[in-house]
Amino acid sequence: MCNNHPTRVLSAPHAKAKFERTTIERRALRPHDILIDIKYSGICHSDIHSAFDEWGGGIFPMVPGHEIAGVVEAVGEEVTTFAVGDRVGVGCFVDSCGECEYCLNGDEQYCTKGVVQTYNNLDYDGNPTYGGYSQKIVVTDRFVVRIPDQLDLDAASPLLCAGITTYSPLKHWNAGPGKKVAIVGMGGLGHLAVQFAHALGAEVTVLSRSMNKKDEALEFGADHYFATSDPDTFTELAGHFDIILNTVSANLDVDAYLSLLRIDGTLVNVGAPANPDSYSVFSLITGRRSIAGSLVGGIPQTQEMLDFAAEHGIAPKIEVIPANQVDEAYERVLRSDVRYRFVIDISTL
Amino acid sequence: MCNNHPTRVLSAPHAKAKFERTTIERRALRPHDILIDIKYSGICHSDIHSAFDEWGGGIFPMVPGHEIAGVVEAVGEEVTTFAVGDRVGVGCFVDSCGECEYCLNGDEQYCTKGVVQTYNNLDYDGNPTYGGYSQKIVVTDRFVVRIPDQLDLDAASPLLCAGITTYSPLKHWNAGPGKKVAIVGMGGLGHLAVQFAHALGAEVTVLSRSMNKKDEALEFGADHYFATSDPDTFTELAGHFDIILNTVSANLDVDAYLSLLRIDGTLVNVGAPANPDSYSVFSLITGRRSIAGSLVGGIPQTQEMLDFAAEHGIAPKIEVIPANQVDEAYERVLRSDVRYRFVIDISTL
Repeated sequence: MCNNHPTRVLSAPHAKAKFERTTIERRALRPHDILIDIKYSGICHSDIHSAFDEWGGGIFPMVPGHEIAGVVEAVGEEVTTFAVGDRVGVGCFVDSCGECEYCLNGDEQYCTKGVVQTYNNLDYDGNPTYGGYSQKIVVTDRFVVRIPDQLDLDAASPLLCAGITTYSPLKHWNAGPGKKVAIVGMGGLGHLAVQFAHALGAEVTVLSRSMNKKDEALEFGADHYFATSDPDTFTELAGHFDIILNTVSANLDVDAYLSLLRIDGTLVNVGAPANPDSYSVFSLITGRRSIAGSLVGGIPQTQEMLDFAAEHGIAPKIEVIPANQVDEAYERVLRSDVRYRFVIDISTL
Repeated sequence: MCNNHPTRVLSAPHAKAKFERTTIERRALRPHDILIDIKYSGICHSDIHSAFDEWGGGIFPMVPGHEIAGVVEAVGEEVTTFAVGDRVGVGCFVDSCGECEYCLNGDEQYCTKGVVQTYNNLDYDGNPTYGGYSQKIVVTDRFVVRIPDQLDLDAASPLLCAGITTYSPLKHWNAGPGKKVAIVGMGGLGHLAVQFAHALGAEVTVLSRSMNKKDEALEFGADHYFATSDPDTFTELAGHFDIILNTVSANLDVDAYLSLLRIDGTLVNVGAPANPDSYSVFSLITGRRSIAGSLVGGIPQTQEMLDFAAEHGIAPKIEVIPANQVDEAYERVLRSDVRYRFVIDISTL
């Protein structure tokens, strides 16, 4: 257990480069570390933003991937919560201070010291972090979650980011019985949001550009489906929703969406367009409305989300690909040509 | 009681015109109507926006004024809650449907049918409403509030708009012990917001352009005072506040103010700039922050606010002027040359 763990990875040598198979070393296990044999790793749109360095500050070579599902291969000597053979997951974060009010509250994503992201970040020792496009990863036990037996490992992986990113705000803004919830965009995030909002008991409406995904939306549990390309949608649904969860990363006509909210309604953004959005303050004050944002979710809530998904039969619809198709998959994501999430079969790496 | 009530008013014949003394008739009392002998009427910045038709749709001739304090002169036959001689107030609204969920919840300002504004609006019969720059007004009893004996009538009048506009969001977003509240701008609204937030138990910081009003802010109950013209302010107070109440009607650097919020903090706007504001979604998602707006407050909460002000010795600092100085007062408001609210002595009309 004192040796480093060599592991094959898919690595981008520089921004927008094609992926290369290389080998890195994962650290020797510390007392609270867990070595995970990764089985599947989801492709998140933010992997592409990062690998293309669209948000700036990219650390290369880069090994993306923060939707990690695998099996425990070894544990550090003080690990008590997991054992070899356990089915586990790792999401967007691999460390936090553990002491600030947010960490103590299970909101590690807002850690005062700064949460350590699973890849394209520096850990507290100053070492770059490398993500899930990898055979193995070493993660401190506090950031490992348990994948319930009811969930397949491949389908579980996107839940670690896309799942918690949508579940967390739905819970925070009290989506549930009696609430009317709109999901804007039905891609990787949106198709999970529909399932969660429905299972939480809300009345769910999908707002998508076209009518193309209507049948699938209804299968995922949507009660209604409207095309935002049709101006009548904004007339018909005026003042209708308690919560609008915007999963789209492009700039929106914010005032048009705010007009769909009831009094005290909230437009929650989980996608982040690169350019500013704008709004009229009148759209807010005339209905005590809010524009909000939410970032992934904390570790306890990630476990809760996985258990909830298992209980309610919620899973992403995925397309499993071998490791040599990741570049092509990126191109397809950029064309929105995926229903609804790519997952890399790490055994092919 | 069956006759109309002639009353002298200050009337603007068209947008941006000087005020003229004219006479209008208030309606004969219906069973639930109250005839009020107006003693004082506050000048709100929105009076100027309306009289100058800056928001469009102005109904002229216009009699502004929605900060009305006076004494009951007569009551309709079914009025049971007020009697002749009672000290009463009327704020921004004079009617609502009374039946929708918002009216039933005491949030008449968000009435589904559309609340009837005290002036520059049409009532449900289609008649223009005329406001408080007037000797008398007739208002249905549901929109009349009681002014506690501890409050002087002149100082009470601005509470009917400026007071409730700031009290309502502070209550809605739970300003109180343990909460850090910033008040942006210390004018007519801001100087009342400071007093309310302090009396509610919050730690209060004033964010004003210059240091000019610091001494007065501390007298009003502020714990801290910072100038927003000093860039260090935004460094020193980063991540500091639970609530920022923005009382300024000009466009703000929204991202800069959002950076002052803690996790789950809210920037609440009660002023409404004519042009859109813009923000980066990253400012929201990185701290689950919100941008919100709030419109005045409902009738039950307006009464609660008056009682709270009486209990805690809260009152606006006012400059009482005769009716022939209203045009000049408007000019002074536009130069921010008032500490902090003009009130018209209606006996001079």
